[in-house]
Amino acid sequence: MSTRTARQIVLASRPEATPGPEHFRTETVDLPELTDGDIEVKVHYLSLDPYMRGRMSDAKSYADPVPVGGVMEGETVSEVVASKNPDFAEGDLVLWRTGWVDAAVIPAAKVHTVRKLRTFGAPETTALGVLGMPGFTAWAGMKFIGKPQAGETVAVAAASGPVGSMVGQLAQLAGARAVGIAGGEKKCAWVSDGIGFDAAVDHRDPDFYNNLKAACPDGVDVYYENVSGPVWDAVRPRLNLYSRVPVCGLVANYNTGGLGDHDRLPATMNTILTQSVLVRGFIQTEFAEHYDEFLDEIGPKVADGTIVHKEDIVEGLENAPEAFIGLLEGKNFGKLLVKVN
Amino acid sequence: MSTRTARQIVLASRPEATPGPEHFRTETVDLPELTDGDIEVKVHYLSLDPYMRGRMSDAKSYADPVPVGGVMEGETVSEVVASKNPDFAEGDLVLWRTGWVDAAVIPAAKVHTVRKLRTFGAPETTALGVLGMPGFTAWAGMKFIGKPQAGETVAVAAASGPVGSMVGQLAQLAGARAVGIAGGEKKCAWVSDGIGFDAAVDHRDPDFYNNLKAACPDGVDVYYENVSGPVWDAVRPRLNLYSRVPVCGLVANYNTGGLGDHDRLPATMNTILTQSVLVRGFIQTEFAEHYDEFLDEIGPKVADGTIVHKEDIVEGLENAPEAFIGLLEGKNFGKLLVKVN
Repeated sequence: MSTRTARQIVLASRPEATPGPEHFRTETVDLPELTDGDIEVKVHYLSLDPYMRGRMSDAKSYADPVPVGGVMEGETVSEVVASKNPDFAEGDLVLWRTGWVDAAVIPAAKVHTVRKLRTFGAPETTALGVLGMPGFTAWAGMKFIGKPQAGETVAVAAASGPVGSMVGQLAQLAGARAVGIAGGEKKCAWVSDGIGFDAAVDHRDPDFYNNLKAACPDGVDVYYENVSGPVWDAVRPRLNLYSRVPVCGLVANYNTGGLGDHDRLPATMNTILTQSVLVRGFIQTEFAEHYDEFLDEIGPKVADGTIVHKEDIVEGLENAPEAFIGLLEGKNFGKLLVKVN
Repeated sequence: MSTRTARQIVLASRPEATPGPEHFRTETVDLPELTDGDIEVKVHYLSLDPYMRGRMSDAKSYADPVPVGGVMEGETVSEVVASKNPDFAEGDLVLWRTGWVDAAVIPAAKVHTVRKLRTFGAPETTALGVLGMPGFTAWAGMKFIGKPQAGETVAVAAASGPVGSMVGQLAQLAGARAVGIAGGEKKCAWVSDGIGFDAAVDHRDPDFYNNLKAACPDGVDVYYENVSGPVWDAVRPRLNLYSRVPVCGLVANYNTGGLGDHDRLPATMNTILTQSVLVRGFIQTEFAEHYDEFLDEIGPKVADGTIVHKEDIVEGLENAPEAFIGLLEGKNFGKLLVKVN
């Protein structure tokens, strides 16, 4: 065996608000011997994603929280280094939720949930981003809820990130106008010039509200909601009749209860009513049966560069907590990954 | 001619919050002579509905506001008393938006928007309630958005009213459990015993939140939203995975900005996300092409008593303002109508 111990990062305690380094702890554990049907993997890349903030809390959610002392959850691209399973050979690249670890034994009973990578010639890291859960989240939300039409306007926040950048490009492939919202000049320049959105608006600009209005002269037909907070307040008055709002994330709410002492619900409900808006929350697993359809449609476009994407790769598992904390503050630039081995 | 003048109630000024008698004024005007294609009607019944509160304000909405000094808008059942139009004869009962008046001349150019009553033998008042706009609003929201399934739980507020009572009965026709929310013991007794909802919950009871929870042991799959406010706060935590929330009214927000100094939006968005909730605002006119389908399906059920309903009839056009103010306070009991002639 190449690896008989694993380093792992566990949840040391639950954060009340913003997570800090003190909420994580690194441990080293022995790996079990392989029995029939097991495989052992060496982790290449760990994906860090906003949803992980939710798993650190024990509030009711769509998934169980990580227990205190438990390994932080996460999806990885790994290489099979030992196999007692006829379906997997040494050297196979696989996708699985090993968590924040550098190596793992996947027990026989769970091997059926391991996917072999399909990247159409694109780098293996794409399996965690543009061709992975974030890309699929964007695709499913647009295909089944947002349904952009030619000539419409689609707005999305975190537009330089793996979900937002895909949303905008899918909008444009449908003939719609893509308006991206991002934090800071550098990200906005990438959104408009690097990815090619029709407009990019900086939510850190003091005149964000009016800049967004100017960027959406015909209103907004699809707002792909992945942040909430002040961006929602700026987009809401722009929503057109029969607009659609897929909701897949609320990053701005993860660390705070809201925007203070003003009740923003009546204005939201009033817009929903008067503009006949469709709002639909979703988790990408709802559409899991369409994953191969997504790969077949989008994979070749990523491999040939029709769909562009950006990665932000941090070296070393031990740096995962700091990178994750930065993700919640918008410090990453592109899909955040940790290179583990 | 039977009537050559008309009394009409106009908007005297715009209310800042709760409307009072001072926001209305009664006038008498001469009716014009009939020219070719015109019809003259004597109003039998005026419908009073919560949406009229919105028309008194000049805030952006789905319809233009009533101008100050203009006749209050509203739908009526009228009798044709004179006709210069071959499609209408004296004695015909018609449905039209005459406004708050006791008589009107409908000009030739607008006669194509006049409907003859189809009540399947039920009283003419039903054309303004259970077989009119309120009944159709309930039906359309359930058929195209709520989509109740057998075994599911459907909750609705203002359950003794014309929309809510229909929502519950449509839920039961679909095999779902109907939970009605109403204000006060008398209305709740009518909802459970008179209409036959599976449960009725009094939103004025100090223990409303827990009573609603107890009445929905399997959660809520469809919440037909027509009030917002504290009822939403009680229903929201009950919403099941993939639940649907048709939004057709927000009575509790019409006179106030919200529930005070607590931001209720993050909790709402969090529920939408974690439970994959569908929220969809709508105005019944979106589905107008299905109106005859609605009448064909529901009309016979109203006529034979399968679908029950309740009317609250106030005598005299001059009493319309007071009755309307009471409607916004929940004082009416059943579909509120004014008997004009």
